[in-house]
Amino acid sequence: MPAYDPNNVFAKILSGEVPSYKVYEDDRALAFMDVMPRADGHVLVVPKNPARNIFDVAPEDLGYVMGVVQMVSRAVRSAMNADGLTIQQFNEEAGGQVVFHLHFHVLPRHAGQPLRPHTGEFEKQEILEANAARIRAALGR
Amino acid sequence: MPAYDPNNVFAKILSGEVPSYKVYEDDRALAFMDVMPRADGHVLVVPKNPARNIFDVAPEDLGYVMGVVQMVSRAVRSAMNADGLTIQQFNEEAGGQVVFHLHFHVLPRHAGQPLRPHTGEFEKQEILEANAARIRAALGR
Repeated sequence: MPAYDPNNVFAKILSGEVPSYKVYEDDRALAFMDVMPRADGHVLVVPKNPARNIFDVAPEDLGYVMGVVQMVSRAVRSAMNADGLTIQQFNEEAGGQVVFHLHFHVLPRHAGQPLRPHTGEFEKQEILEANAARIRAALGR
Repeated sequence: MPAYDPNNVFAKILSGEVPSYKVYEDDRALAFMDVMPRADGHVLVVPKNPARNIFDVAPEDLGYVMGVVQMVSRAVRSAMNADGLTIQQFNEEAGGQVVFHLHFHVLPRHAGQPLRPHTGEFEKQEILEANAARIRAALGR
């Protein structure tokens, strides 16, 4: 497996070099809006420590980030009035990974609505900010 | 959210009432072959304690089961000579959940090969047993 590339876009989000719509942050994990959401309220959760994916992440970081995934999942369900939730995590290009910093997709789901396809188009900023605000409110932040 | 239903099929696998192709087991988690695999070597990882899904699982059980997901992911990649790996976890019917005991799908991926659709058909027993044996060997079991 290739080494961790510190120039990936999520590393730049973690460093602040690239802006993001944050919904949760502590000293070990960050949750922020996916800017090409496959559903309204699509959030990404990442550990702060460098890890390429499931294969190289430190077990204690993986366990910690899953606690944040659970907390964010409950908030996303509530904020988006979702009927269900899908969690996806991709490893290596063949596994669907595009950005090579470990991340979990938290996707709110509504009955009868399939996930939107990846279009490569950015969501409108006001929609991302509005959904981030709803999720932050559900997190009590 | 509905209460945990102790008659779900994974509870019956955990109790031994329903057979399964096990690849890993300890006192807190079980990993076994999906009998309707969307890729050869498709494994499911579950906590032994009852939990419907991400919303109600005890954080310590979630963290523990992710450690097993990581261990199994490495073994599945090796055993199936996979180029990548996709992890999926579905919550409530709208989120894609069919069996209501928390489970993580570990799906080995090969470049250029999409996941097979859900057909509802059972894989041949000899194929499931052969893939389970390969994964157990990669786990040193």
